[in-house]
Amino acid sequence: MTRRRIRGSTQDDVRRHNLGTILTEVHRHGCRSRAELTAEMGLNRSTIGDLVAELVEAGLVLERSASARGRAGRPSLEVVPCPDAAYVLAVDLGVRHLVVARVGLGGDVLDRVEAEPGRDWSELDATVDAIVEACRRLRVGAPDGARCVGVGLSVPGVVRQEDGLLRFAPNLGWIDLPLGARLGERLDLPAFLANDADLGALAEHWRGAAVGYDHVVVISGEIGIGGGILVGGRPLRGRGGYAGEIGHLRVNPDGRLCRCGSVGCLETEAGVEALLGAAGRPVDGGLRAYREVLARVAAGEPKAAEAAAGVARWLGAGVGMLVNTFNPDIVVLGGPLGELFAVTEDVVRRTVARSSLVAPHEQVRLAVSALGTDAQVIGAAELAFAPLLEDPIGVLTSLAA
Amino acid sequence: MTRRRIRGSTQDDVRRHNLGTILTEVHRHGCRSRAELTAEMGLNRSTIGDLVAELVEAGLVLERSASARGRAGRPSLEVVPCPDAAYVLAVDLGVRHLVVARVGLGGDVLDRVEAEPGRDWSELDATVDAIVEACRRLRVGAPDGARCVGVGLSVPGVVRQEDGLLRFAPNLGWIDLPLGARLGERLDLPAFLANDADLGALAEHWRGAAVGYDHVVVISGEIGIGGGILVGGRPLRGRGGYAGEIGHLRVNPDGRLCRCGSVGCLETEAGVEALLGAAGRPVDGGLRAYREVLARVAAGEPKAAEAAAGVARWLGAGVGMLVNTFNPDIVVLGGPLGELFAVTEDVVRRTVARSSLVAPHEQVRLAVSALGTDAQVIGAAELAFAPLLEDPIGVLTSLAA
Ligand SMILES: [Zn+2]
Ligand SMILES: [Zn+2]
Repeated sequence: MTRRRIRGSTQDDVRRHNLGTILTEVHRHGCRSRAELTAEMGLNRSTIGDLVAELVEAGLVLERSASARGRAGRPSLEVVPCPDAAYVLAVDLGVRHLVVARVGLGGDVLDRVEAEPGRDWSELDATVDAIVEACRRLRVGAPDGARCVGVGLSVPGVVRQEDGLLRFAPNLGWIDLPLGARLGERLDLPAFLANDADLGALAEHWRGAAVGYDHVVVISGEIGIGGGILVGGRPLRGRGGYAGEIGHLRVNPDGRLCRCGSVGCLETEAGVEALLGAAGRPVDGGLRAYREVLARVAAGEPKAAEAAAGVARWLGAGVGMLVNTFNPDIVVLGGPLGELFAVTEDVVRRTVARSSLVAPHEQVRLAVSALGTDAQVIGAAELAFAPLLEDPIGVLTSLAA
Repeated sequence: MTRRRIRGSTQDDVRRHNLGTILTEVHRHGCRSRAELTAEMGLNRSTIGDLVAELVEAGLVLERSASARGRAGRPSLEVVPCPDAAYVLAVDLGVRHLVVARVGLGGDVLDRVEAEPGRDWSELDATVDAIVEACRRLRVGAPDGARCVGVGLSVPGVVRQEDGLLRFAPNLGWIDLPLGARLGERLDLPAFLANDADLGALAEHWRGAAVGYDHVVVISGEIGIGGGILVGGRPLRGRGGYAGEIGHLRVNPDGRLCRCGSVGCLETEAGVEALLGAAGRPVDGGLRAYREVLARVAAGEPKAAEAAAGVARWLGAGVGMLVNTFNPDIVVLGGPLGELFAVTEDVVRRTVARSSLVAPHEQVRLAVSALGTDAQVIGAAELAFAPLLEDPIGVLTSLAA
């Protein structure tokens, strides 16, 4: 986990930093005993007690007996977040889906709205209106006294880091759009924007299959295949934010023509359409047909199993390349690829072993996404929580003003 | 370029930081006018003058008339490094080569020794003795008053960042070797160790084809193919230091068996032996035979050109994967691959275009290494210069003590 740096040296700065660290710990882990906080932060017990008391007074955390965790002996206190004290709105915008959720301190999704499933969201004004309306409904449903501290958006495009400008969202047809600023104004909230693949990887790192790992490759996507890559806990973006286009790694030079113009991309060889084609189904059958094929594989039907094994080998070849390139702690397979992996694990693992070097292969884990389709919502929520976790009392004070 | 952070807030810290910044600028660029330093550092002219005067007094830089640069009007002063004021010893250790150089402040290689070309350097004691002997000769040859501030080593292996332990050098058969500490003791100098591919990429970034770029892929190697990758100006290392094994990306599933156990790796399809094989030569002909084939390509001989084009296409496919994965500013081709690129540039560029996405492809440059076989020496020298560039006066004072 990346530790924040103490920027100043005044006592106020140190205290703000320590309050933020405690709230972050409690928010990420769900609960933390005073003893754990004392050990992790290298502060003495009375300082921790004092800091926790300030967060309790602000209504952000509470202390409860830790007996629920089954410890023997004198019951100790543990610090837990108050999910209704502060929440964020998290938006997962795709070309054909728009989910808005209310996520409480501690990271639980408390409420969620999906706007018109399957609709095309490339019309900007209608999309902004739909997001605003969903946010309004979620805020109305929040308990009295719960404070909304911001809105986070996951978008299928390239986002400029400095100011959150949406540079380029090819599948929505959007270019250079100040989407964050526009939503922030409409909602009167701080708004934060990030790329969906980056957020998916960060979400697995913060709360999913990759907790505790800093070098992470997430391979995911619905029909296409995309990647979110963390190097040292931070998203790999490259020069212009296009890094991680691993769906278009050419795994098979003799493969099918890809929509990107190349042939034999990981996406064309291991994606949803590849399995449907290999299983003799119409390739536009979508996820429903895909899951039917996987169910037959699980049931041991030979023809389906053979089709799945072929696709799984290309997936393994792609994973092998990523293992050699990044020497990651973990490769997380999300979405349809995770479902494929669940029934072809042996084939995938064998191919990964064959197409990667011994040393990085020995160090890598393969896992299925722990967050599924919630990854973007959870990632977007963390974006919006970041200022509160940096300066808890400061943010609450500015909200009250 | 990564800017160093000011860690404290006292005046001494700020002054040390500013002295380091000026010396780094002058060291990297060869010369800097006071006006340039004033503009770059955001300090006023008198502060810059004062800082430069301290470095002049310490003998690290001198000021000379800038008229040599052909400016009209009033001649201004420029600050240049004194190469004989401070130097480092830079060691490039390979399985079959051992080069030790004396590199002056400013980055010029002032003297060099190659120990017994072609010898196998896997015998540890003999290798350490040879390095120590070469260093001794270079120090004897240095001018009176020149101060040696450290030794930097480039090694073909995985180095632990924290303490410079050589974790694993497969081709030398070395495991968990405190090579830096051992050499530091023998030479009575601060010693620094890093991986050869990482140093190659850093050297191109600091002084070669990738100056000004933070997202860099260097593909290089003699007989095998290795990669040095910079993400945001820093080497990509991954979990255990094995990242960047791009020679074993599987570009051709129907390709030749590779020494790594996989088939169709970039190394087997685009390396030296691949070209020799395609040209109908014995594959163990080495670099001399390789260059003969390339000379025939340059002379327009059809059979050689066809062989080179086939190999160049696999190289382009590998580069395309790296463009999609990293969205780099630049891909630098070093060693034999740079020589291949020089005579097959069109083929490589066409294949890269076909096997990468439009957006990252538009942003990438392809270039040949500007440093050639000196890259590791130059990188190792920078390692050893780092403390001096961080705290010029402090390091000189500690040497005098
Ligand atoms: Zn493609
Ligand atoms: Zn290989």
